[in-house]
Amino acid sequence: MTKVIDFQTDPSKYRHWRVEYDGPVANLYMDVDENGGLFDGYQLKLNSYDLGVDIELADVVQRMRFEHPEVKVVVMQSAKDKVFCAGANIRMLGGAEHSHKVNFCKFTNETRNTFEAALADSGQNYIAAVKGACAGGGYELALACNHIMLTDDSTSSVALPEVPLLAVLPGTGGLTRVTDKRKVRRDRADIFCSIEEGVKGKRAVEWRLVDESIPNSKFDETVQERAREFAAASAKADVAEGISLGPLNRTINEDGSVVYSLVEVAVDRDAGKATITLHGPEEAAPANMEDFTAQGDQAYLLRLARELDDAILHLRLNEKKLGLLVFRTQGDPEKFNEHENLILSNGDHWLANEVAQYWKRILKRIDVTSRSMVALVEHGSCFTGILAELLFAVDRSYMMEDEFEGDNRPLATVSLTDANFGPFPMANDLTRLQTRFLGEPDAVAQAEGRKGEALEADAADDLGLVTMILDDIDWDDEVRIFMEERASFSPDAMTGMEANLRFAGPETMETRIFGRLTAWQNWIFIRPNAVGKDGALQRYGSGVRGDYNMERV
Amino acid sequence: MTKVIDFQTDPSKYRHWRVEYDGPVANLYMDVDENGGLFDGYQLKLNSYDLGVDIELADVVQRMRFEHPEVKVVVMQSAKDKVFCAGANIRMLGGAEHSHKVNFCKFTNETRNTFEAALADSGQNYIAAVKGACAGGGYELALACNHIMLTDDSTSSVALPEVPLLAVLPGTGGLTRVTDKRKVRRDRADIFCSIEEGVKGKRAVEWRLVDESIPNSKFDETVQERAREFAAASAKADVAEGISLGPLNRTINEDGSVVYSLVEVAVDRDAGKATITLHGPEEAAPANMEDFTAQGDQAYLLRLARELDDAILHLRLNEKKLGLLVFRTQGDPEKFNEHENLILSNGDHWLANEVAQYWKRILKRIDVTSRSMVALVEHGSCFTGILAELLFAVDRSYMMEDEFEGDNRPLATVSLTDANFGPFPMANDLTRLQTRFLGEPDAVAQAEGRKGEALEADAADDLGLVTMILDDIDWDDEVRIFMEERASFSPDAMTGMEANLRFAGPETMETRIFGRLTAWQNWIFIRPNAVGKDGALQRYGSGVRGDYNMERV
Repeated sequence: MTKVIDFQTDPSKYRHWRVEYDGPVANLYMDVDENGGLFDGYQLKLNSYDLGVDIELADVVQRMRFEHPEVKVVVMQSAKDKVFCAGANIRMLGGAEHSHKVNFCKFTNETRNTFEAALADSGQNYIAAVKGACAGGGYELALACNHIMLTDDSTSSVALPEVPLLAVLPGTGGLTRVTDKRKVRRDRADIFCSIEEGVKGKRAVEWRLVDESIPNSKFDETVQERAREFAAASAKADVAEGISLGPLNRTINEDGSVVYSLVEVAVDRDAGKATITLHGPEEAAPANMEDFTAQGDQAYLLRLARELDDAILHLRLNEKKLGLLVFRTQGDPEKFNEHENLILSNGDHWLANEVAQYWKRILKRIDVTSRSMVALVEHGSCFTGILAELLFAVDRSYMMEDEFEGDNRPLATVSLTDANFGPFPMANDLTRLQTRFLGEPDAVAQAEGRKGEALEADAADDLGLVTMILDDIDWDDEVRIFMEERASFSPDAMTGMEANLRFAGPETMETRIFGRLTAWQNWIFIRPNAVGKDGALQRYGSGVRGDYNMERV
Repeated sequence: MTKVIDFQTDPSKYRHWRVEYDGPVANLYMDVDENGGLFDGYQLKLNSYDLGVDIELADVVQRMRFEHPEVKVVVMQSAKDKVFCAGANIRMLGGAEHSHKVNFCKFTNETRNTFEAALADSGQNYIAAVKGACAGGGYELALACNHIMLTDDSTSSVALPEVPLLAVLPGTGGLTRVTDKRKVRRDRADIFCSIEEGVKGKRAVEWRLVDESIPNSKFDETVQERAREFAAASAKADVAEGISLGPLNRTINEDGSVVYSLVEVAVDRDAGKATITLHGPEEAAPANMEDFTAQGDQAYLLRLARELDDAILHLRLNEKKLGLLVFRTQGDPEKFNEHENLILSNGDHWLANEVAQYWKRILKRIDVTSRSMVALVEHGSCFTGILAELLFAVDRSYMMEDEFEGDNRPLATVSLTDANFGPFPMANDLTRLQTRFLGEPDAVAQAEGRKGEALEADAADDLGLVTMILDDIDWDDEVRIFMEERASFSPDAMTGMEANLRFAGPETMETRIFGRLTAWQNWIFIRPNAVGKDGALQRYGSGVRGDYNMERV
């Protein structure tokens, strides 16, 4: 699996999904093209999915927010007879490398989370209308919707047969949403997750696995009725027209570097690192949201967001040996603040809200990115507001102190804005500064008191906003040593360490999915009982059960 | 590693620990006998530990609660020069099977948790007095104490060098306690966990890694002063005398079965299951706590607790292929209630409190036991109060309904008591019934309304207290099919599934240690970068770094 995976797509290229817009209701049809797999060696039968199917789905959800703000309810359904969705494709999983499996699951998890975020942040409510078999990842797709309707016929059921059939977990949020979102009684959950055939009809409702079971003859009609009801009851403001998201301006070079309009990714394969430089705005901020809307996908903050998001995903899936991501910024912090301020001070404007919520998702994506991350606060940089959040998302930050010989860029500063005190919570529902200062909550208030100031190295260090400040004499050596050291560590130990250190404090369903559930799934994904040559994933479809080592750990 | 590991010990047998009692202060010395390893093939140099060392430590903590209730402060320290504790023995880890490593870590985690429980539940406060190197598991031992004092000399430091040295995590609670208990800023935690040499002196205090840094010349004196201060400030009531914990009445038979005075463990190797039968009391309850105290370790509820605890630990470490634990009880529920009531209604009596808190620990140990667990509520059983908690701890329960032919035992009932509504929370700080009914909180109140009733099958089922009720016609087949089915599943998938389903709702430091941290450690423990022949654990001490696959997952 060495081809470059492209996360950019648009409806003209979809092979697996189709949307029909009907005023405030969007009917989203899953209709996977069996022969449209991202890689060779498997067919996507029965609406099973691979990363390619999920990339399209993520695009659908994203465009729903920006291009179709009139939509209040999304009805997820199958365009195929007798099957809603059979889950992740087993042959693909069986053939994929461990690192691909894990990164595939992470992206699908992030996409499932966007269904819930769409309701919470933007009032777009996802309904799953389940007709036919809905198994494994298929039911996990439904679980991520906020209302599950199941047709009551002889063949339709919901199921999580991963454990008995495949010896792996329902790892795309399945186990966590069963216990934490659907709040299924644990002994029932135990039964449900142990039976291949799943649960249907009244029992599925009684066990809280679905919200409604509806006679087949009335199903389609009831679904549309429910969709209209939800739309009518929605508090989402009416918006007549969205903006369109055009293709990114992006060049992927031979040497692995990627150049966008505002983001550059430089690659150093020997050192195992990628340096991501974000450029501040050249142009003045739009005067108001009307001007911003007119700029559409070319508006600075939206363009920057889309490019950064793509860069992160590209590095995750296509550059797995680059274990260190270095974040740099260059630009005018005050100008950046003007752009940011327009968005943050217009929270009641649908597009300002969408842009802010998109940044929230990107920052969360960075939080769960399994690479060591460092920010370099250099002279000429613009780590302010949203961009300062990067300092609190990364594992460490180094900041230039005082003048550097031959460097006439403006002295490095960090500034805090409203962006750092609320609108961009982590998955644990705390802000990054609250998480950072869990042991010294006063430090958050102290930092807030200095909002708006361009803080030079000493001040930033005193406030605990950066890890280390270094002058001209030490900078090169210290930064180099850190990077070399980091590159010498086991990437597995780094992954485990970072996954534990980054999320102090409270847990939420989201952190549990990326923590507890994902970690167990990763463990199982490397155990011979699942992935060995006689393991369940390899033997699936052969009629012979996996040959298990029965020892418990 | 096939010898039987015995969790029973007593001070006369200790090879690694020594306690000096000094009124309300106990000085606990770690002095590991290099040649006292549980298995061959490694020496326990520099106060490094293996499971045998930890079994003694668990015994120390347990006896401190029951035999030395006069103790208010425990000072954990090293009896060796220049080293506090070097952590888990690396050669032992390098040579151990995956299943031993994982179970070893679970037990050491449970033991660390008992330090914190001793303060919370019993007012016994653990201080770590750190002189010399305190690395890895050594610092994790200190982290589990509530106050860490570090001597300020040229060689003493605290460190978590697992990641750089061994490519594994500080998995015995280390990462979690650094973020959640000590609340260390995450970029500092990142540095701290990446450097082999650790942190000392003022910086260790400033970074919240220790509570005090004290000049070496004043160290011993200050430690004892602090211990006396803490003892004087303690709210723990004065108790003159404890009870002594004698050896268990236990026979381990050739066929694997284990017989105690109140607990029997029957083993069926072909079916991969162990059946644990708990017997109700024969004798009437002691009239009051004086009588209970006079009975000492022979008092019914304490004897039952000790035997059950030992049985669980025995099965975990010595019978890893028995993937299913079946819990049965037989006895008079009313008589059991009398014993329980004496304990629960005398919460201000130190021994009643200790017995109840011990049951809390055992029930938590069952919750995190990585085996499928089922309870069979048969005729003649006594699932009431504390024993009814087993029904909510296991993955499923089956209950006999109506009379069974040829069975003249009293009809199966379940009864709830105060025990089920508060005193025995799970690690998530909810009761097992609250966790069970997360989706239907009213069901808890409904169940509480029926407290004291002997609920037959129909009523227990209506209240949601059992998974399934079965009459004479279905019982044998249904139970057999469940057990056969369970035995056919991958034990890894079961482990992951159960770890996710058992802990719905909120998380605590404790659930995070057994969930997020442990799961990542288990994953790393099977990755070639750590355990492969060129991995870090195997190469440790050779001077050559592990040969890592640098791909990130």
